[in-house]
Amino acid sequence: MKSESCCNIRLSRCSILTLLTVFTLNADARSQEIVLSPETEECLACHAELHPGLVASWEKSRHSRTTPGLAMQKSRLERRISSTQIDSKLIDVTVGCYECHSLNTDRHRDAFTHNGYIINVIVGSSDCSVCHAVEADQYSNNIMAHAHSNLVDNSLYRQLIETVNNPHTFEKEHLAIGKSDTLTDNESCLYCHGTRIQVRGRVTRETDFGALEFPVLEGWPNQGVGRINPDGSLGACTSCHPRHDFSIETARKPYTCSECHKGPDVPAYKVYVVSKHGNIFESKSTEYDFDSVPWTVGEDFTAPTCAACHASLLVSGDDNVIVERTHQFNDRLAWRLFGVPYAHPHPVSADLEEVKNSAGIPIATELDGEPVAEFVITEQEQKLRNERLQRICLTCHSSEWTGNHFIRLDNTIQKTNEMTYEGTRILMEIWNNGFARGLSQGENLFDEEIERVWTSLWLFHTNSTRFASAMTGGGDYGVFANGRYQATEQLYRLLDWLKTQKTIYGGSTPMRREDGN
Amino acid sequence: MKSESCCNIRLSRCSILTLLTVFTLNADARSQEIVLSPETEECLACHAELHPGLVASWEKSRHSRTTPGLAMQKSRLERRISSTQIDSKLIDVTVGCYECHSLNTDRHRDAFTHNGYIINVIVGSSDCSVCHAVEADQYSNNIMAHAHSNLVDNSLYRQLIETVNNPHTFEKEHLAIGKSDTLTDNESCLYCHGTRIQVRGRVTRETDFGALEFPVLEGWPNQGVGRINPDGSLGACTSCHPRHDFSIETARKPYTCSECHKGPDVPAYKVYVVSKHGNIFESKSTEYDFDSVPWTVGEDFTAPTCAACHASLLVSGDDNVIVERTHQFNDRLAWRLFGVPYAHPHPVSADLEEVKNSAGIPIATELDGEPVAEFVITEQEQKLRNERLQRICLTCHSSEWTGNHFIRLDNTIQKTNEMTYEGTRILMEIWNNGFARGLSQGENLFDEEIERVWTSLWLFHTNSTRFASAMTGGGDYGVFANGRYQATEQLYRLLDWLKTQKTIYGGSTPMRREDGN
Amino acid sequence: MKSESCCNIRLSRCSILTLLTVFTLNADARSQEIVLSPETEECLACHAELHPGLVASWEKSRHSRTTPGLAMQKSRLERRISSTQIDSKLIDVTVGCYECHSLNTDRHRDAFTHNGYIINVIVGSSDCSVCHAVEADQYSNNIMAHAHSNLVDNSLYRQLIETVNNPHTFEKEHLAIGKSDTLTDNESCLYCHGTRIQVRGRVTRETDFGALEFPVLEGWPNQGVGRINPDGSLGACTSCHPRHDFSIETARKPYTCSECHKGPDVPAYKVYVVSKHGNIFESKSTEYDFDSVPWTVGEDFTAPTCAACHASLLVSGDDNVIVERTHQFNDRLAWRLFGVPYAHPHPVSADLEEVKNSAGIPIATELDGEPVAEFVITEQEQKLRNERLQRICLTCHSSEWTGNHFIRLDNTIQKTNEMTYEGTRILMEIWNNGFARGLSQGENLFDEEIERVWTSLWLFHTNSTRFASAMTGGGDYGVFANGRYQATEQLYRLLDWLKTQKTIYGGSTPMRREDGN
Repeated sequence: MKSESCCNIRLSRCSILTLLTVFTLNADARSQEIVLSPETEECLACHAELHPGLVASWEKSRHSRTTPGLAMQKSRLERRISSTQIDSKLIDVTVGCYECHSLNTDRHRDAFTHNGYIINVIVGSSDCSVCHAVEADQYSNNIMAHAHSNLVDNSLYRQLIETVNNPHTFEKEHLAIGKSDTLTDNESCLYCHGTRIQVRGRVTRETDFGALEFPVLEGWPNQGVGRINPDGSLGACTSCHPRHDFSIETARKPYTCSECHKGPDVPAYKVYVVSKHGNIFESKSTEYDFDSVPWTVGEDFTAPTCAACHASLLVSGDDNVIVERTHQFNDRLAWRLFGVPYAHPHPVSADLEEVKNSAGIPIATELDGEPVAEFVITEQEQKLRNERLQRICLTCHSSEWTGNHFIRLDNTIQKTNEMTYEGTRILMEIWNNGFARGLSQGENLFDEEIERVWTSLWLFHTNSTRFASAMTGGGDYGVFANGRYQATEQLYRLLDWLKTQKTIYGGSTPMRREDGN
Repeated sequence: MKSESCCNIRLSRCSILTLLTVFTLNADARSQEIVLSPETEECLACHAELHPGLVASWEKSRHSRTTPGLAMQKSRLERRISSTQIDSKLIDVTVGCYECHSLNTDRHRDAFTHNGYIINVIVGSSDCSVCHAVEADQYSNNIMAHAHSNLVDNSLYRQLIETVNNPHTFEKEHLAIGKSDTLTDNESCLYCHGTRIQVRGRVTRETDFGALEFPVLEGWPNQGVGRINPDGSLGACTSCHPRHDFSIETARKPYTCSECHKGPDVPAYKVYVVSKHGNIFESKSTEYDFDSVPWTVGEDFTAPTCAACHASLLVSGDDNVIVERTHQFNDRLAWRLFGVPYAHPHPVSADLEEVKNSAGIPIATELDGEPVAEFVITEQEQKLRNERLQRICLTCHSSEWTGNHFIRLDNTIQKTNEMTYEGTRILMEIWNNGFARGLSQGENLFDEEIERVWTSLWLFHTNSTRFASAMTGGGDYGVFANGRYQATEQLYRLLDWLKTQKTIYGGSTPMRREDGN
Repeated sequence: MKSESCCNIRLSRCSILTLLTVFTLNADARSQEIVLSPETEECLACHAELHPGLVASWEKSRHSRTTPGLAMQKSRLERRISSTQIDSKLIDVTVGCYECHSLNTDRHRDAFTHNGYIINVIVGSSDCSVCHAVEADQYSNNIMAHAHSNLVDNSLYRQLIETVNNPHTFEKEHLAIGKSDTLTDNESCLYCHGTRIQVRGRVTRETDFGALEFPVLEGWPNQGVGRINPDGSLGACTSCHPRHDFSIETARKPYTCSECHKGPDVPAYKVYVVSKHGNIFESKSTEYDFDSVPWTVGEDFTAPTCAACHASLLVSGDDNVIVERTHQFNDRLAWRLFGVPYAHPHPVSADLEEVKNSAGIPIATELDGEPVAEFVITEQEQKLRNERLQRICLTCHSSEWTGNHFIRLDNTIQKTNEMTYEGTRILMEIWNNGFARGLSQGENLFDEEIERVWTSLWLFHTNSTRFASAMTGGGDYGVFANGRYQATEQLYRLLDWLKTQKTIYGGSTPMRREDGN
């Protein structure tokens, strides 16, 4: 560490000329090991002045202080780079601007000619895979990589999106739902799921360096996990490894995950911080080493973070591997806790396009919660994944402790699914009586007040309860904080509404609903 | 500190033989002061490999770096150990695995023979009391020690638990509440309140060291504050001093308290972090000394944490004692803010078994909020407790500042109790009219939508408002964030529902309710 | 830094005599540069013992380690003091107790004779302006400085306050709203908005130093941003620079802002922490320099905090100024996102007393959301403010990234205003039909359940959605966490309620509402 930190020079304090010299000198001082490519030097010559924060952040990165060649010399456990064949042009230069922004330009619809070079605005996951091939490959099997299409190409989810994001107009006892707009979708659901970035022509802008032409990008900015990049690749590695320092420390800290996992639908971060794990992390993490590879249990950290359980390569003090690194995060997860509306064994494929149940609805369970066997992993595979995860638990906990925890989780998955089922039965009676119009009428399931009561039951409350159970704590997220208290309240609310409607209409199909609303 | 940290060796990097040698050498190097017992050495020989995280955490503890004998030599204010008579077998050895897990085995239903030793799986509060007698004694007078029984043996609270945790089945305009299951109860309410840990026989498991027999534990894992341990003792000291480093730093930081005090019913942590105290803590705590005993106001910390006000021994710079340490946290609290449904002077006894009001309901207030004098502390005792707490306030604030703060709190307690009362009056009219079935019918008070509206009024909104008032800040938790805005909204909702029912039924007992639902 | 920290002596460990000597010696050692005034020495003689925490906090402040004279010698960018003329009595002494608490005593209604000196209890913003004139002047143009009057003198907002804070009594199908009490108002809305501090006579108190007379203060304690001080000045600088260390680090960290900007109405802090900016801040801020003036982008910090974007003087590594410091925080803000009920261009004047629309309602928009041109800044001024803010964005982001972000925000402002409008249209129909009594009847707009549904729509959900959009992230605060999901649910709820009423009453004015409730 110490020998590396000395190269953390301050580009932005230098005039352009000095800047280049300093880099050269610095590289000299380190036996020519760290060399900027001439192209990157040229990038920095302008951009250090234009975007001093961006460049300073990169200077603090490991990318600025090593080369792929040096990174490949580390031992297997210590390596932070997984590709075994790297282009000779890249191997002995620092990972600078040009090295990342000039890859695979033929596939990049966002490539443009910029001061004589062909540059991609956006670095896609396939560009990162040049050095991080194994991680990119694993990530492609991660459900997150498909988060865009899994959402917007699912007809059921689209119904929900439309009722949430689209304009509503009050028209005579009716709320008419207007057309969606891309700007809203891109900053709401797709903020996390990832936008589809499209190139919409070229524009010329006046800059400090004269008029320059740039591609026009729709869906940009975005760092959603399933972003569809202009080169066709899926996923923004920057979701968790934010630019331009790409810090492993950041990725390993739970704050990163909170960006998308704090809402009432997936309150994983909230549960974590009130769990014993989170509590110890918060009080002790300034003493942890978040940069060490491999990551040693007990020594580098005493309480796990999200990354420790779901992603990182963990070893014990004697460099015995506890779990291998994975970027397919469900590798250690038997269940998809997040239920729409039911939790179920993890899907087999990360791409959910084919998934549908016997009623033709694009979800992996029947209406009563039974998983559709074809689309979910087997019990055997569930067992295997649980065992992987439990190897981590066992570094601190007894097998009884660990085993009992998972028995509770299984019970909670079953009980919360049953709660969702009872709520669904009440809503079915409401629909069947025509008090609201949804599944029975072939209409939107989410555009009436009572349908939203049902939606919140599973989207927020049973989901929250399962996360609280799974993550060894977060008692209140399973009770009073969007947990069982609220879940049962939604059941009472559904029933109360049904009864009121029956009283008013005497059980017959209400006239007022025949207008199609 | 420095001399201690050198003994933080890395057990897990060593083979078993080396490990024992290192410990001996290390002990030698420190003039034989720190000696592992042979039994603990034997524990570590296997468990360092089996549970490297657990052992590494213990290595970082003070327990691994001192002995009871050394600890007793400190001055009164500096002592972290309160027992004055400690068994000679324990006094000169490090506080290791065996020292804690082999105590009082005759009382431990979880004791089992393990490699020739009798070992308790669970260290109960009475085991900790061997060295920390005063703290254990104080804690037994803490309402938290009785949190299990105070909850599950209270018939009113059980009604609430059943409607929250038990399965519900939709049966013809009715939600039938099924039987409770222990797994759910243990991970929800009892996560914080503490489970009753019961030994359910023995099981033989294959381990890395051959087949071994272990006790089967129900209610495990758990670290709830009122846990009923297999030795009959009450409370898990690990609730706040988590295993196996038992760090005073962790106990003094507010994250620990957040584990159970962040939900909408007791949002103490949420209020704290947005208070001026919390805000200063969050921006400055990396400069604080959380390990120092005694804890010096202004020097070791500038803004108090939960522990500072409610537990710690505080001194000023000249070692003048401001408040003595207490593990009966209501020692400095005049009011039980958490109202079910009304706030009232703190109960006299930590065990609430006897408490009931004139209507026979097991709460310490009448239905109109009047405290039942017999069960609550006197005004004089309230004054005494307030004075204790205010001594801490006065280290930074003037007496006018401090006095005015408590005047506001008293007013808010009264005003929020009145709000709860008005809500109760509306619900009584609803019950009396038969629009819902509860107190008037001798039925469950929490199993209908409108009853839950009333429940949320006091369980979440007036409680939250009082915490916001008490903890010198958290403005919004008394206004828009589950505060007065939501409290008054629940009143409007109760009224709105009552009016709708009256309109529909014309004020007469509704037919539809006669079926018992 | 190092040379300064050596003067951080421990007053509270010293007897009074030693204390004074130490200060003198210490000052000697530093070439007489740091000298306590004799008056401050006298204050400390008692108060170090009485309020050790307060004094220790001041000792850690920059105030205790410098003098105005020294502070004025710094270069323009490095100066932390903006006044150019400072009274000679103050210029060469440390900024101690007496220096701040003895200013402008003739204007201070809280001034009192104390041990022979005239002392003000409360240091007002005009006292701080003695050294920090530019900041105080800027702050007077900050909408925050007027937060007290802008709230309590606005007849519409008073309606809301009354329904939230005042006692409610259930009287025969009616909730009667009682009179407000100052104690409640001061700890709820005015906790953030600021109280009006009034002097209510004098009181004699027994103290450790005999009987002493003090002013009696109403509205104290308080550090709300728009506090009306006893000297008539507006604003508590301690809102963000808390006593008595007045740390710039604290003001620059987002925790400070969370005190008032975390509730569901203005969830700026919540949005920030889940944004990429917040995520990087949380994982990296221990490496940042929060004390440096000027504040260098990329070098001192890599992710901006609230202060970076809205207040601080920022430079790039070569000391090029990116933005000048401002204490008028809307200097860089084109829009007032917080809508009551509509977002609109920022008001021209920080004092909103004159603002009203064509219907006579004291808000800056018409009922359909159209801004009242006279009271809001022009498009040109909006452009100017956006450009100021964008200069900060551009230090790390491209102009396309930045531009697209603001296009999305503009769209979201429009779309959320439309949502509020549709909700308002439904409520208007409810009012016009007499199902509830509000605008159409000239009655309170916030005192019925259905009115609160409408209130939450804009006060919480469309506001939250706009903050999520504006602050480059916080996806869920625009979707499932009080965002568009909840906003549209409120629309469905309004419609559902309207339909039920129509069904029950057949569209005619309901009899039951004719009683005036």
